[in-house]
Amino acid sequence: MTAPRYDVLGIGNAIVDVIARADDDFLVAQNMQKGGMALIDEARAQGIYAAMGPAVEISGGSAANTIAGVASFGARAAFVGKVKDDELGRVFAHDIRAARVGFETPPASDGPSTARCYIMVTPDGERTMNTYLGAAQNLQPADIDEGMIAASAITYLEGYLWDPPLAKDAFLKAAAAAHKAGRTVALTLSDSFCVDRYRAEFVKLLRDKTVDLLFANEAELKSLYETADFDSALSALRQDAQLAVVTRSEKGCVVASAGTVESVPAFPVEKVVDTTGAGDLFAAGFLFGHARGKDRKTSARLGALAAAEVIQHLGARPEVSLETLARERGIPV
Amino acid sequence: MTAPRYDVLGIGNAIVDVIARADDDFLVAQNMQKGGMALIDEARAQGIYAAMGPAVEISGGSAANTIAGVASFGARAAFVGKVKDDELGRVFAHDIRAARVGFETPPASDGPSTARCYIMVTPDGERTMNTYLGAAQNLQPADIDEGMIAASAITYLEGYLWDPPLAKDAFLKAAAAAHKAGRTVALTLSDSFCVDRYRAEFVKLLRDKTVDLLFANEAELKSLYETADFDSALSALRQDAQLAVVTRSEKGCVVASAGTVESVPAFPVEKVVDTTGAGDLFAAGFLFGHARGKDRKTSARLGALAAAEVIQHLGARPEVSLETLARERGIPV
Repeated sequence: MTAPRYDVLGIGNAIVDVIARADDDFLVAQNMQKGGMALIDEARAQGIYAAMGPAVEISGGSAANTIAGVASFGARAAFVGKVKDDELGRVFAHDIRAARVGFETPPASDGPSTARCYIMVTPDGERTMNTYLGAAQNLQPADIDEGMIAASAITYLEGYLWDPPLAKDAFLKAAAAAHKAGRTVALTLSDSFCVDRYRAEFVKLLRDKTVDLLFANEAELKSLYETADFDSALSALRQDAQLAVVTRSEKGCVVASAGTVESVPAFPVEKVVDTTGAGDLFAAGFLFGHARGKDRKTSARLGALAAAEVIQHLGARPEVSLETLARERGIPV
Repeated sequence: MTAPRYDVLGIGNAIVDVIARADDDFLVAQNMQKGGMALIDEARAQGIYAAMGPAVEISGGSAANTIAGVASFGARAAFVGKVKDDELGRVFAHDIRAARVGFETPPASDGPSTARCYIMVTPDGERTMNTYLGAAQNLQPADIDEGMIAASAITYLEGYLWDPPLAKDAFLKAAAAAHKAGRTVALTLSDSFCVDRYRAEFVKLLRDKTVDLLFANEAELKSLYETADFDSALSALRQDAQLAVVTRSEKGCVVASAGTVESVPAFPVEKVVDTTGAGDLFAAGFLFGHARGKDRKTSARLGALAAAEVIQHLGARPEVSLETLARERGIPV
């Protein structure tokens, strides 16, 4: 096995976030489930945009945020995802490349426009998301370069890839290429509604060892095993997953495998401004540590550090160098 | 004279800001004059964008920021400016309408794309701007609805309108319509380089009373009268302008006319994050107060309050209700 060219390669929906502040009444009036992610069509996207307040546009997408975070730790990172050749597609491509992430997926020249996620941030810092998948729907196996996958220590996939019809096949092609090269495949469950849509398939990915490393939050884990009891869900997970990290917001996280369970606390945060990207950036820190051979506890601390940074400002990508931040906190990177 | 439909109507370049953090070395390498605003062509825009870091897109434009601020104080406000019918044009239109500003200028269906301002924010909070005027270049007299101008207590114009070839005529048409209806015409000098380009014309606008109320910062005032001495520049201004407000950053502002000069302090600020929009929002507060018949000192305090809000976050439009903020500070609105 040759040395990897990339520490982490991520595959996900390439999305530009459209973020506005909103109060809880707005969510009720717009029939939005607070804290959730709803898939919407173009007509609904237009309706939401017309109703929502002044917004800012910031590149997003769950796995893309994670990969930007990995690069911010100083790692070599790449991203695969589909935009259209339009203004927002160019914004997405610029931002991820400017974050020193390799991004070579060719943009679609026709079809739907670049994906957008309309995010309402309520005064408590919670975010409620509405995703128009647009061009991201057309990610397909042909977009997966098996050589690039084989050259990446970890290939990281988002559960959201189960939504676009062809992306699932791209996902499976990538996982097979990674394993053929002796690399690691990681997956995030994305959100509890996503788990609800694809529960059986996600459990199967763990049991047949398509996935080596799983990221989930508490709600996703409970949804996966259809239980309200965290401990029994965790027990079930330890049977199915080789290695799993379960994040629990301010309670920190649990790193679990069949043999061991370790808890790592969250980093204290002065004021939560916008929780968008918390899970994505946790994964970034853990993946970085894991790819660089850190122990599980150190990797989890790097995840907690990155999550703490991103929830203290608007947007889901780091605003400062995570490498510098880790050094300042005395965590070796 | 009938009661006005709008408190303030602004005319200016309709621009979307593309904001990134940068260090001073980047400004040097890119040959940018720190704190300035440079006009750039499309090729230079592409070069800067390719070189700059991950960015956020936020609606901007000097007069547009001011008008969004006026609306945030609870006033009736309108804006006139030219975008193209493209993605960023729709972003601009959405954001200003979502700020409860009347915006009816039809977008251009062809020609250059919506204007963008590439803004580098250095660690000291200073902003350095590079503007690609694009569709904003095609604002013309036909875009000025004289009935709307006549129905506005104050018509507010930006000096930057002297840059696009046809906008100057639109400016003069608007000023004439305002005065015919017995309304007030206000102007901001925009920036010291702009003053340098159009010094004689700006002085003439004051002397022939095309402009009733002038906004300038210290650098613009000194440039207008080609002197390094603030007091002599202020004396000259008091001869030429009927009413002028000169902002002096953390030193506050001076409200001056032939007969009187009043100083008003700045609001203390914890940390300057991004000075973009400081002057624009100062003008918003003053214009709001002036349109609502407040005394000069109160109007200037409202301006200082709005400027203090906008420099504490990224972007040049208020993130909170300025009406609420003013009430919290005990300023009657």
